[in-house]
Amino acid sequence: MDTLTRRLTRAAVWSADGVRVCDVELPTPGPGELLVRVDLATVCGSDLHTVSGRRPAPSPSILGHEAVGRVVAAGPGADQEVGGRIVWSVTAACGRCARCKRGFTAKCEQVRKVGHEAFTGDWPLSGGYAEHILLPAGVTTVTVPQPVPDAVAAPAGCATATVMAVLEAAGDLAGRRVLICGAGMLGVTAVGACAERGAHVLISDPHPERCDLAVGFGARPDTGGPVDIALDFSGSATAVAAALSRIDLGGTLVLAGSVTPGSTVAFDPEAVVRGWLTITGVHNYEPRHLVHAVEFLSRTYDTLPWHGAVAAPVGLDAIDTVLAPPPRGVLRASINP
Amino acid sequence: MDTLTRRLTRAAVWSADGVRVCDVELPTPGPGELLVRVDLATVCGSDLHTVSGRRPAPSPSILGHEAVGRVVAAGPGADQEVGGRIVWSVTAACGRCARCKRGFTAKCEQVRKVGHEAFTGDWPLSGGYAEHILLPAGVTTVTVPQPVPDAVAAPAGCATATVMAVLEAAGDLAGRRVLICGAGMLGVTAVGACAERGAHVLISDPHPERCDLAVGFGARPDTGGPVDIALDFSGSATAVAAALSRIDLGGTLVLAGSVTPGSTVAFDPEAVVRGWLTITGVHNYEPRHLVHAVEFLSRTYDTLPWHGAVAAPVGLDAIDTVLAPPPRGVLRASINP
Repeated sequence: MDTLTRRLTRAAVWSADGVRVCDVELPTPGPGELLVRVDLATVCGSDLHTVSGRRPAPSPSILGHEAVGRVVAAGPGADQEVGGRIVWSVTAACGRCARCKRGFTAKCEQVRKVGHEAFTGDWPLSGGYAEHILLPAGVTTVTVPQPVPDAVAAPAGCATATVMAVLEAAGDLAGRRVLICGAGMLGVTAVGACAERGAHVLISDPHPERCDLAVGFGARPDTGGPVDIALDFSGSATAVAAALSRIDLGGTLVLAGSVTPGSTVAFDPEAVVRGWLTITGVHNYEPRHLVHAVEFLSRTYDTLPWHGAVAAPVGLDAIDTVLAPPPRGVLRASINP
Repeated sequence: MDTLTRRLTRAAVWSADGVRVCDVELPTPGPGELLVRVDLATVCGSDLHTVSGRRPAPSPSILGHEAVGRVVAAGPGADQEVGGRIVWSVTAACGRCARCKRGFTAKCEQVRKVGHEAFTGDWPLSGGYAEHILLPAGVTTVTVPQPVPDAVAAPAGCATATVMAVLEAAGDLAGRRVLICGAGMLGVTAVGACAERGAHVLISDPHPERCDLAVGFGARPDTGGPVDIALDFSGSATAVAAALSRIDLGGTLVLAGSVTPGSTVAFDPEAVVRGWLTITGVHNYEPRHLVHAVEFLSRTYDTLPWHGAVAAPVGLDAIDTVLAPPPRGVLRASINP
């Protein structure tokens, strides 16, 4: 008897005491809602920060906000049909508040987040580390083309879509000298996407094996010198300051990695003025970026070395083993619930 | 006998010893060059910085880079005809170097600047504080519609065009809360241009009489609180830091006033990321901005209180009296050579 017909599913419920896999009642999707069978979830670094206590989060909760799955039930008015293979956004937006109307749905005044909600609240099945997830109305979903492997598709909803937002903020990339700071999942994805757009990409990361992976995506190891664009995924104030000092005339520094409290960085207003420099920040992304993410992965799933970025999946019962930094040379653990 | 037929003109030649009005031989315009009879020149604050020794400049030289005049002779291939009433850009660009090709003609690798060249070099008549000025090929010129008074048109080539570049960097202004720091000529021009585009404009300046003038252009006195856009024309690191701290979600701080060495300003990378904030600099402007400037002045010459911004002109012989900060409540002195 499968989990759906007996109306129970299994989920990894995280709390300060650890992770416990337990049975959870399967909800019937309401208006606009989708019930999805999770095929594969990748483990974003921010979940590792949550588990290690460096990032505040509701507890208990079901973590996991990068995943791919199939729709098994759709509420009235939902925008996907049963059977569709999809990825989904982290944020659920109301679409009506001032922020949503201005195009900042990720900062919706009533935002709720996949993999970030209390298990004891009205959306217990909010995370991807479970057999099923319930996607409320306001979550963006995108169909994944058949040939794209699960392990390539799963990061779309966080890493890949955020990179698409960062690239939009960076502007035209063709022929530009681009420095990418941080060769984690976002950094190597950015390398591949910048190289695809015709940029000359340099990668900077203290870990040689991560730089090697980024080279496989199209970067050269950073050798210093001026650049037109720098994208920071490291979140290091030192790296941000160093990148800023290398931006050439009319160039742009896009910050995306600084999502936890850290040191301030100084800038020289005269240098910003005379150099027509731009410093800009990106946090999460908008629905269009998830569309761009799936398009990018569909173009590159068999041309970029994604297989080297995501480790082979473990089952839900082994989730403890992957809620820790992934093995050297791999950027994402994954779970096959 | 007028100055042109006797092939001499009068010019105010500035050097560290002071300003001396003297006769200068009138050149015959070469290919692409224009000889212009200056009708009126306004005195930009940067010339006051030069005269007071705070800004390095070739000496001796003819200062003045905000002016309006009529073409009296045109070299072969010049883009204006004799008789045309025009304003012109500060920068003369080659149009062929990498920076020009990338759209940064103001940073042309061989840039030469109106009112900034040595009197003893190959372009002695480079400045507007003279009866005539020679405009080389590579200077942008724009025809001034007949009804726009000289005193309104003259600042187009520096203050107004720079403001147009700043507004382009600021993005959409309709309905936005805009803070303008510094109510000098650029600040009040920005107030008028932002108000015209439907922004809610706040003005911040330590001088009450300048704030009063800005209110006449459509601003309200700053009362604090968050803003969507801040435009700094003050060049004060303190003002820049204060403005940055007030930028709301997705907002932009455009720096234009910081053109001399000053203190650095600290930013919090996490605040930039989570707030989708942008800090960007603008220095000088591109040819399109001079076109926009003349269009803006043509729309507003009789609706905005420009008469309160520019003082009545003095003759060239009285230039000494206007190479000093203008009287309280006025933003620009002017010279009728």
